[in-house]
Amino acid sequence: MRVGRAEVGQRSETVHRANLSAIVRRLHERGPQSRSDLVAATGLTRSAIRGLVGELAAEGLVTEAEAVHLGTPGRPSPLVRLNATGAVVLTLEILVDSIAAAIVGLGGETLAHVRLDRPRMELSVDDVVADLAALAADLRGRGDWRIVGIGVAVAGIVRQADGMVSMAPNLGWIDVPLGARLARALSMAVPISSMNDADAGALGEHRRGAAVGVDNVVFISGEVGVGGGLILDGRLMTGAAGYAGEIGHLTVNPDGAPCRCGSVGCWETEIGERVLLARARHAVDEGREGIEAVLREAQAGSETALAAIDHVGRWLGIGIAGLVNVLNPRLIILGGPNGRLLPFIGARLDAELERFALRASRELVRVVPASLGIEAPMVGAAELAFDPLLNDPAAFFRGGSASVHLATA
Amino acid sequence: MRVGRAEVGQRSETVHRANLSAIVRRLHERGPQSRSDLVAATGLTRSAIRGLVGELAAEGLVTEAEAVHLGTPGRPSPLVRLNATGAVVLTLEILVDSIAAAIVGLGGETLAHVRLDRPRMELSVDDVVADLAALAADLRGRGDWRIVGIGVAVAGIVRQADGMVSMAPNLGWIDVPLGARLARALSMAVPISSMNDADAGALGEHRRGAAVGVDNVVFISGEVGVGGGLILDGRLMTGAAGYAGEIGHLTVNPDGAPCRCGSVGCWETEIGERVLLARARHAVDEGREGIEAVLREAQAGSETALAAIDHVGRWLGIGIAGLVNVLNPRLIILGGPNGRLLPFIGARLDAELERFALRASRELVRVVPASLGIEAPMVGAAELAFDPLLNDPAAFFRGGSASVHLATA
Repeated sequence: MRVGRAEVGQRSETVHRANLSAIVRRLHERGPQSRSDLVAATGLTRSAIRGLVGELAAEGLVTEAEAVHLGTPGRPSPLVRLNATGAVVLTLEILVDSIAAAIVGLGGETLAHVRLDRPRMELSVDDVVADLAALAADLRGRGDWRIVGIGVAVAGIVRQADGMVSMAPNLGWIDVPLGARLARALSMAVPISSMNDADAGALGEHRRGAAVGVDNVVFISGEVGVGGGLILDGRLMTGAAGYAGEIGHLTVNPDGAPCRCGSVGCWETEIGERVLLARARHAVDEGREGIEAVLREAQAGSETALAAIDHVGRWLGIGIAGLVNVLNPRLIILGGPNGRLLPFIGARLDAELERFALRASRELVRVVPASLGIEAPMVGAAELAFDPLLNDPAAFFRGGSASVHLATA
Repeated sequence: MRVGRAEVGQRSETVHRANLSAIVRRLHERGPQSRSDLVAATGLTRSAIRGLVGELAAEGLVTEAEAVHLGTPGRPSPLVRLNATGAVVLTLEILVDSIAAAIVGLGGETLAHVRLDRPRMELSVDDVVADLAALAADLRGRGDWRIVGIGVAVAGIVRQADGMVSMAPNLGWIDVPLGARLARALSMAVPISSMNDADAGALGEHRRGAAVGVDNVVFISGEVGVGGGLILDGRLMTGAAGYAGEIGHLTVNPDGAPCRCGSVGCWETEIGERVLLARARHAVDEGREGIEAVLREAQAGSETALAAIDHVGRWLGIGIAGLVNVLNPRLIILGGPNGRLLPFIGARLDAELERFALRASRELVRVVPASLGIEAPMVGAAELAFDPLLNDPAAFFRGGSASVHLATA
C-alpha cells in the first residue's frame, strides 16, 4: 500500500511543468522513446506531446530522429532522444582507497571519467578537496559542458541539506563541512548535492543496475566500513537528515568487539573486510588485493581462508535476516568485497536466513551482487545531481533555479 | 532528499479529480478550513475552490458554515467542514487480548465503538470471524451509515493485497485467509484493507497522534509480541508485501533465547511483556494487569521489579539504537506496555543510545509514549480504509470504485 500525502491543487502552469518533467524523466530513465510511446506513457494527446517535445528541442535537451517505420499500420512515429550534452552533471566520489570524478550526460552516459587510487590512510580534508578540484578542472577542460549540478558521494555520514560530514571514521573525519569546502574550491554556480556512498550505490543500482523496476531494495556496501542504502516503495530513503542506512552499526553482538564508531558489537565488526583479512591471516590493510588473494586461497582449498569466509557469511546472514524482517525487501544487493564472496557463501546465507528470517519475508527476497560494481556510487551521485532538472526542466532552461540552490557556497 | 519517481502527464479530468482529492484530504487531516485557507493551501483560484466545494456539498461530503468574520479586512470566508456521516468506514481490530470494531466518520471522528475483551489464549479463526461479524452487525444497526470501506488491524504478519495472515504466533494462526473470511462473513460490497496492528498504530499516530507533521517515525508496539510500524519520508512503509516492520524479530542476541517465531535471540525475547513479568516474578500471562502491578511494585521500591524493568530498558535501548542507525528517525513512539515503562527507563535508554547509536542520528531523535494509547491501531485502520476515497473522491460519488476493489470477496 501507498498511503499518500496531501497533494496540492494544480493549475495549468504547474501541469505544464509536470508534463515536461514526465517526458524528460522517462527519456532519462528508459532511453529513447517514440512519440507514440510518450503518448502512451503520459496519457497526453499527440499534439500536446508534439508541443512539449518541441519546447525541449528548442532548449537543446532532446533531438528527434528520423521517423522509423516499424511495419505497423499508420504513420511512423519519430523517435525522441535526449542530448547527452544538452545538460551534464559533475560527479565526485570520496572512497577510502580512491577518489574519482566524472562528467555524466543527461540520459546517464558517462562522457568523461577519472579515478585516482590513493593509499588507504587518513588524508586531510584540504588534500582531498584540492585533489577533487584538480580532477574537476581536468574534466571541465575536456569539453564545453553545460553543467547543471554537482553530485558528491562520500564514504561517511553526511547531512544532505549542506554536505556536512558528521563522521567518516575510515577517512578520519569528524564534522567536516565538505559541501561548503567543495563549493568554495570548485566555485561553480550550480547546486551541490551530497550523499553517503552506499546511498549513492543504492540509487545507482535502482536507476541503472540490478534493481531497475524493483521497489524495495537494500544495498550493502563494504570496504573497510559497511554501509547501506535503502530503496523503499521505489524511493531512496535517507531518514530525517540523510543519515539512514548505517546498517554497519546495527548492533548484532552487544558483548562483541569494539567498533571504530565508538560502539561495540556493530555488524561491521563481524563482516567488514578487515575481519575477513585478519581471520584469513592476512594484514588487515591489504584492501581489494588482499580480498582477491583470500578468494584464490579458498578456491585452492585453504581451510583458513574457507573458515574466514564462512565466518563472514554467517554474520552476513544474521544481519541480512534482521534487515529482511524489518524492511521486507525484494532484493538485497551486495556491493564491494561482499559481492565477491557470494559464490562461496550462498549455502551459509540460506541457512542463516532460514534460521533468523521470518518465512513470509524470506520467501520473497533474493541476494545478488551489485551489477555496476565499483562505479555504482558514481552512477547514483549523477542521478542525485540530475534530480532537480528532472523534477522541473523548465526552471533550468529559464535559468531560474540553479543560483537559488547554491546555499552551500 | 526525495528522489521522485516518474510522474505521468496530466489532463484536465485528472487535474479535476486531484483537486477534489486535495480538498477532501486536507479537511480530513486538518479539520475545518475556510475557503481562504483552501485557496492558500491548494494554489487554486477562489472561483475554482467555490466550484469544487459545491460539488462536494452536492454529494453530501461537506457543508459550509455561516461565514465567520475574523476581524480582518475584506469579506468573511465561509468555513468548510466534512460531514462525518457523509462517508464512514468500518474498522476491525484483532489483538491478543481483545477484539474491537468501530464506525469512523470522514474527518476521523469515531461515531460508534465496541471492544470485547477475551482471554489471552489461542482462538479459532471461525470464532474470531464470527465475533467480529456480530460486532459489525451491532454497529451497523445503530445508524444508516454510508460505509465506503473496511479497515482491519491484526496482531500478525499480513499480506496487504488480500489480507492473508502468514503468521500470527500469539494468536496461533498460520496461513489464515483472513481477508477472504471476513469478506464472506460481512458480505458488504466495499473494499477490505488489512494491515498489521503496529503498522496501523504508526499510521494512527502519524495522522492523529504524537507524530503529526513528523516525517520519519518508528512506532514500537508491544504486548506479548513486539511489532513495529515505519513512517519514512512521510509515508507508511510496509515493504514488498506488507511484512515490513517486524522489528520484534530483529536478531539482537544470536546465542539468546528461542522465540515463538522459530528463531533465536529475537528482540522480543528480551523486551516482550512476558520477559518483564517473568523477571519480576509474575506469571507470564498476566497481561496488562500484571504490567501495572509490576509498575506499582517498582514505584514502591521493589528491587526485583526495578531490575526487571531495567533489563527491558537496556534491551529496548540496544534495539532502538539499531533502528536509529538504520532509519535515522526523528521520533520513536513506544506503544503498549513499553510506553508505560518510559518514566522508569529514561536514563537507561539514554545511556544505551549513547553507547550504541551514532551521534549524528542520536542527537535528532526523541523517544515518546503513544498519544492515542490502545486505540492507535483502530485510528490507523480507519485511515487506511479512507485512503481510496481520499485519493479519488470522485470515483466514490460516481459509484465506480468500490465494487472494483472487492477482490478479496
